Parts: sequence; C-alpha cells; structure tokens
Amino acid sequence: MIVRRLLLCVLVLANGCFLRSGFGQTIDPDQAKQIFGILPQVAENPQNPVTPEKVALGKSLYFERRLSKSSSISCNSCHDLTMAGADGLSTSLGYRWQLGPRNAPTVLNAALEFAQFWDGRAKDVEEQAKGPIVNPKEMAATKELVVQRLKSIPEYVEAFHKAFPGDKDPVSFDNVANAIAAFERTLLTPSRFDQYIAGNSGILTEQEKQGLNTFVSVGCTTCHNGVGVGGGSFQKFGVIHKPDWLKDLGRYEVTKNDADKYVFKVPSLRNVALTAPYFNDGSVWSLEEAVKTMAFAQLGRKLSDSEAKSIVTFLHTLSADPGLVVSPPILPASSLSTPKPMP
Amino acid sequence: MIVRRLLLCVLVLANGCFLRSGFGQTIDPDQAKQIFGILPQVAENPQNPVTPEKVALGKSLYFERRLSKSSSISCNSCHDLTMAGADGLSTSLGYRWQLGPRNAPTVLNAALEFAQFWDGRAKDVEEQAKGPIVNPKEMAATKELVVQRLKSIPEYVEAFHKAFPGDKDPVSFDNVANAIAAFERTLLTPSRFDQYIAGNSGILTEQEKQGLNTFVSVGCTTCHNGVGVGGGSFQKFGVIHKPDWLKDLGRYEVTKNDADKYVFKVPSLRNVALTAPYFNDGSVWSLEEAVKTMAFAQLGRKLSDSEAKSIVTFLHTLSADPGLVVSPPILPASSLSTPKPMP
Repeated sequence: MIVRRLLLCVLVLANGCFLRSGFGQTIDPDQAKQIFGILPQVAENPQNPVTPEKVALGKSLYFERRLSKSSSISCNSCHDLTMAGADGLSTSLGYRWQLGPRNAPTVLNAALEFAQFWDGRAKDVEEQAKGPIVNPKEMAATKELVVQRLKSIPEYVEAFHKAFPGDKDPVSFDNVANAIAAFERTLLTPSRFDQYIAGNSGILTEQEKQGLNTFVSVGCTTCHNGVGVGGGSFQKFGVIHKPDWLKDLGRYEVTKNDADKYVFKVPSLRNVALTAPYFNDGSVWSLEEAVKTMAFAQLGRKLSDSEAKSIVTFLHTLSADPGLVVSPPILPASSLSTPKPMP
Repeated sequence: MIVRRLLLCVLVLANGCFLRSGFGQTIDPDQAKQIFGILPQVAENPQNPVTPEKVALGKSLYFERRLSKSSSISCNSCHDLTMAGADGLSTSLGYRWQLGPRNAPTVLNAALEFAQFWDGRAKDVEEQAKGPIVNPKEMAATKELVVQRLKSIPEYVEAFHKAFPGDKDPVSFDNVANAIAAFERTLLTPSRFDQYIAGNSGILTEQEKQGLNTFVSVGCTTCHNGVGVGGGSFQKFGVIHKPDWLKDLGRYEVTKNDADKYVFKVPSLRNVALTAPYFNDGSVWSLEEAVKTMAFAQLGRKLSDSEAKSIVTFLHTLSADPGLVVSPPILPASSLSTPKPMP
C-alpha cells in the first residue's frame, strides 16, 4: 500500500515535471489511470461488509430526523442527495440554528477517502457517522436517545436484526453508524472522466483534455490524485503562501502538534463543480477563484485566467454523470413510546 | 355540487342512524363508495393543468432549499415525503428556528381538499404553495428573492420555459407555485381502503370492516366523508364540548366573523396513522386519544376503549399502500450571480 502510494507520487511528480517542461502532451487514458486509478462500484470495508440489508437500513437512517434531538435534522439535512451530497451553505445549520465552524463536504465518494472530516479526526465513514449525531452544535442527540428512539419503533428493530444477524443486541449506536456507513459506501459517482480513464478517449472534448493537462502540469495532482482526485493525504493549507483569511488551525486541533497547524485533509474534487462554496469555511463561491487560490497557496503559482478556466473546464468532467438518484426510503411511524422531539 | 353534497350528508346521516340503531350491518364496498367516492389518479385543476414538464419542475422546486431566505428550508422540510408528507413535529421549525403556530398537515392528498391550511385561507394548493415561502416564520423569502435566485440558474430558466410554454416571462413567483402545485396534485396515495371501495371486499380484515362500521355508526363520517375522508368542509372544533386546551381561534383569524371562532378545516384522514402528532397544535400523539377527543368534542360521545381501538384499526387502512416513493430530483448548481444564503 505504502509502496503503491510512493510509486504513485513519483509518477505524479514525474508527470508534472514532464509536462511543466513544455512538451504539452495530452494525458492519455492510461496515464490518467496511473494517476487516479479506477473508481470501484462500492467502497468496501472488510470490517463492515456492505450488504443489501445494511444498505437499506442505512438509507433509512440517513434520512432519519429522529436521530437528532429535535427530530428535525438528518444526515441528509447537511449532505443532501438532491444537491450532490452537500448543502450549498458556507457552514451548516444545526440544533437551534447554530452555525457550524466548517463547510459540509459532499457525502458522495466520501467513503473512498483515507480519513474523514476536514481535520481527519475520524478514520472512516463508520467513525464519521457518529460525530454529527451527538455533536451539540449539529444533531445534538445522545447515543442513548438514538437507541431509545429506534428501539421504540418495531420496523427499525426488525431491520437492525436483519442487517446485523449475528448480533444479540443489534440496535446499538455503533450499528447505527455501521448501517449509515454501509449506505454511504454505495454513494460513488462515476463521471465522464471515469469513462476517459476506462479508455473512451473521445468522451472528453479537446478543451477538457487541455484542462486535464493544465491540471497535471500546474501540479494539482501532487495532492489531488488517486481515485477520489484528492482525499488521500493531509496537507498544510498555504504551504507556500498562507491565505490571510485562514484562521482555522485544522488538524492541530486534533493532534496539538505544531506541525499540524493549518493542515487539512485534501478534499476529493469529485463533484466539485456542483458543491460550492469552497474551502474549510465555505468562504469562496467561485471555482475559478478557488483554483487560483490553491495554485498560489500550495504551488506558489499565479495562474492566468485562461489557466484557471482550463482547470475548471476539466473539473466539470468530475461531476456525477449520470447524476446520482437515490430512491428515498419510507420511514416507519413513531410509536407511543418513542421519545418526543425536543426542539 | 351543493345538491350532491346535501345528498351525501343525508346518506351519511341515514347510514349513521341506521347503524346506530343496532343492526350492525357491514358497510359494503358500494356504500363505502357512496360515502367516500373514488380516489382519482391526479387531482386535476383546469386552471393549472398537470403536465409532465410542470410536475418535473414542481418536484425540483418542492425540494429546493434556495426558495428560502437561508437556502436551508424547502417544502420537503415540513412536508417530508419520506415521512408520509409531514414532519412528525407538533409544530414546524422555520427561519432561525422559529416554531410555527400550527401542525404541518401532510401534503399527501392535500390537493383534493376544498381549501388549504387549517383555517382554509388558501383556496387551493396553487395559492397555498406561496404562503410558507414568504412567511417570515417559515421560509422567510420574498417573491423577488425567489425569482432572482431561479433566474440566476440556467437549468431552472429552461425548465420554466418548458413548463409554461405560452408564457413570455415564465420565471415568476406565480409559476413557482403553479409548478409546485402541479407536482402536489400527483401526490395521491391509494390505500387498502380504496381497494375495498373498488369492490375487493376481502382486502380488509373482519376487524377492519368492524372498524369501518364503528367509524360510520359513531358519526365520524358526518364530517370525514368524501374522497379525502375529510378535507371537504369547515367545522367548529368542539361543537358539543370545546376542548379546554384549544386556544387557536382558527378561521376567525381569517374572517373576523364570531361564528368562525375555533372553526377549522376538517382534516383528511388519509395516512392519519402515519402522521402523528394530531390536531391544530400537534398536541396529541395517540391516535386513539385523538379519536376519543373528537368523538366527545364533535359528537358528545364518550367512546369506550374498544370503540376507539376499532376506529383506529379502520384508520390504518387509509395509509398509503404501497407507500409513496417519489424519485427525487437532481437540483442544478447555483451560478455566481445566485443570491447567497442568508442564514
């Protein structure tokens, strides 16, 4: 795994240097495959196998407002599947209209990333799914409340037994997260760029191919590589020029290690054209501006308008195509013993 | 129309008296059809014809948070299609976490009702759809903001042109409501009881048929008749015994007519078993308790536990079967000129 990643880095850097040297050749599908890899159909986790029963339950729970204290906020509230898995806000609204500190990243393809949250404080979507449910600024529930609500609804009890057949007490907070994560592991979105990687060279326009070249030659693939086009490493935001507005200490808040100040997980760029606003605080709405900011902050490059536009043209090829439509669940009714909403 | 309604009333009352007199005969499918009628496939409105283009646009707008000032609240926030078209709260949460004064009724089959809102202040779903969008306690937008947001998104401009082909300036607040209403006119939910009405006598269990008899013989069909099993008239809540807790003056707030104090639209009972809590303020969570309260308030009847349970058994046959699953839209991205969220 480490060897593969190192190899990839060398390839990426080699590609970058090669292209920066002015040859200007097109990144062909095979080279793209080397840099980015092939999108799987499901982001498997051997510790939490993706089964149809678990996915069905997880989908219900993903839309389940009763996982929140107020019974008004679900996973889908901030990671809306009709909005490419994000919410279009700079930072999200939680319990009693509290604004969160960071922009909600898209849930689409999130399961592919090597860590979760902007600061990587959760190792996978199983661990991530628990966070917002009990965060007092987000869904503001407690583990106990969640389990009590679900145990009070016979259809859920049955669904947990089906999804976790070996489990003596399947309706648990861990299994809430396991089921939601299993559902999220299916939320992968092939794009036209994946068809290109698969060898369909004609699927991209000349402008888009040029954009891919620019993306690679500028050096974006130093960080935005792998199957998520990002989501594979931590990086300091502002390794060359720290943006003035950047206050969030990022991963330092988790590790308290000075070297982690302003360090964030490199976000996946899949669906980036559909998921403005950008950056950890959602302060930038223009993708072109975001691209310029990153090139200057990370690579010390002042991109021309045409370079930035060219990269944006490529980034549009990373949008889900066709768009992901998830047939929504039918949620079961509460029973008389279901703990009431607490707005 | 009036003659038909009068005839229906006579029939209903006759049925009621007949059954109350102790014969205890089963309400057969033909009698049920006389009392309730046949659920249409679409709730048509000649003034706003239901077309595929309008429904497609209306579905997008129904899920569209950008119709709200904060860009965080959509129609679906309070009338959630995964929750039988309601939100499971006593009263709904709006802009800046404001609690509304009345319980959000289900959107399912709402288009069939003779008036909209608890107090009937809108005549149809076309008029209703505008209310929450500009209500400062709900979505808190303005007509101008809504139109500006939609006009800034090319996919919406195109969709409005397709949905309203005769219209020179189709992206209008009226057409937002017309499109949402056209979508809502398709949200009708056949139930097992509709199969019974259609002549499939075996679809209901003996207990359910007994429940139907109780429902009719107690006199519930005096108000809860017609294709919505309600939704066809205004009635004073507490015509015999006004509930102590009832403070809301209902339709009086619209008409300022003393006779309209505590008068509300009779709610449709379709999907009632899925849409707790009950009454104008969502104060009652038990359907059995709601049934008892209504029988005492409206008919002066103190129902026994077994009578109330029997009616509840019948009411469960009014739940959507199969449950309604609406394939969600894929919402277009904002453009740089889209007015930003204002949380």
